[in-house]
Amino acid sequence: MIKKSDNGAVVVLSGGQDSTTCLYWALQRFSDVRTVTFDYGQRHRIELDCAARIAAEVGVAHQQLPLDSLSALGGNSLTDAGIAVGSEPAAEGELPNSFVPGRNLLFLTLAAAYAWQFEINDLVTGVAQTDYSGYPDCRQNTLDALQQTLRLGMEREFVIHTPLMNLSKKETVLLAQSIGALEALALTHTCYNGARPPCGQCPACVLRAKGFEEAGIADPLLAA
Amino acid sequence: MIKKSDNGAVVVLSGGQDSTTCLYWALQRFSDVRTVTFDYGQRHRIELDCAARIAAEVGVAHQQLPLDSLSALGGNSLTDAGIAVGSEPAAEGELPNSFVPGRNLLFLTLAAAYAWQFEINDLVTGVAQTDYSGYPDCRQNTLDALQQTLRLGMEREFVIHTPLMNLSKKETVLLAQSIGALEALALTHTCYNGARPPCGQCPACVLRAKGFEEAGIADPLLAA
Repeated sequence: MIKKSDNGAVVVLSGGQDSTTCLYWALQRFSDVRTVTFDYGQRHRIELDCAARIAAEVGVAHQQLPLDSLSALGGNSLTDAGIAVGSEPAAEGELPNSFVPGRNLLFLTLAAAYAWQFEINDLVTGVAQTDYSGYPDCRQNTLDALQQTLRLGMEREFVIHTPLMNLSKKETVLLAQSIGALEALALTHTCYNGARPPCGQCPACVLRAKGFEEAGIADPLLAA
Repeated sequence: MIKKSDNGAVVVLSGGQDSTTCLYWALQRFSDVRTVTFDYGQRHRIELDCAARIAAEVGVAHQQLPLDSLSALGGNSLTDAGIAVGSEPAAEGELPNSFVPGRNLLFLTLAAAYAWQFEINDLVTGVAQTDYSGYPDCRQNTLDALQQTLRLGMEREFVIHTPLMNLSKKETVLLAQSIGALEALALTHTCYNGARPPCGQCPACVLRAKGFEEAGIADPLLAA
């Protein structure tokens, strides 16, 4: 039995499978859980509705923050409609064209600025360095450096929790099952093409399907 | 004589005295200088026009990036019209009410994301830890941690240059004179209340006046 902390936590909730699992992880550990999600002009905007619905489902305060800078920068397949999402992992040593430079750094910095107002020090994010994608801002060493930056830059003892950091997709599915998050995954969105039901073809869909298959669990999103 | 690097640099240009001095500093050292400025809903929006005009004056590419997240977070005197800018420095151990948590972290992260697209590694910012204000995200240790975060998070060897970090306002004025930036300071904006001519009363105006006075140089903005 995990003992709940009296402290609060802010969960970066994208509306996807991983961040939703992290929300349930946080609910087990913190008494005052809040979620933030970012409208950064993502092509798969259905995520935003999923995030709001999931937060409402579990009864936590939810804040959607605008972040128009990323689409203004452009040049990536997640916010720029003129660029197709790569259907294959990027070549060795290259970043995928869905890489939005600094995206997770911005998300966590803004989550920290939001948490700062409520005197909350614990931040939770669903990033995983085991992801095929190779986004450098999802790696543990980057987040260690970011945690230090946020502590110094806002004078708060922030802790960035990354419960999925070293889990495979299979293990993330098993974790979701063990903490009662499985049903809620029916409300999540994963598909990079914003399709519902999911396209099943994009790297995000393929990765999700593989995780459920290896865990031997049916994806509740597909049963819905 | 300083030898110019063939490299480029991105200068965070607010349109104020310090960042304009940094722009001239960068022009001496880098061949491809670009400037970015942020529209974050600041009360003193006249800064944005100043930044654009200064960049045009020296003939560098200028990018204004939107950053609506900060005003959405609210709760500070720089973006929230319902909060008066403190006319006194904050009490010992307290942050001034013009502190926008994470503002400089966001500016530099976005500047890095912009620089990333042009394969530029050098970033220049006019922050100074000698400022009365005590903003923790202007200190050298914060920027050291941020530099490491940006390097890891975007896989680029970013260098954050802070030419004014340990200079007093007097020394910054003398530096501006020595690199030919003095005339351009007539185009800058400093006043926290957005007034032009400056209000002369807010902490930013008082600090600027003190610097010119101690340097024994007339502020070209007041002569204009």
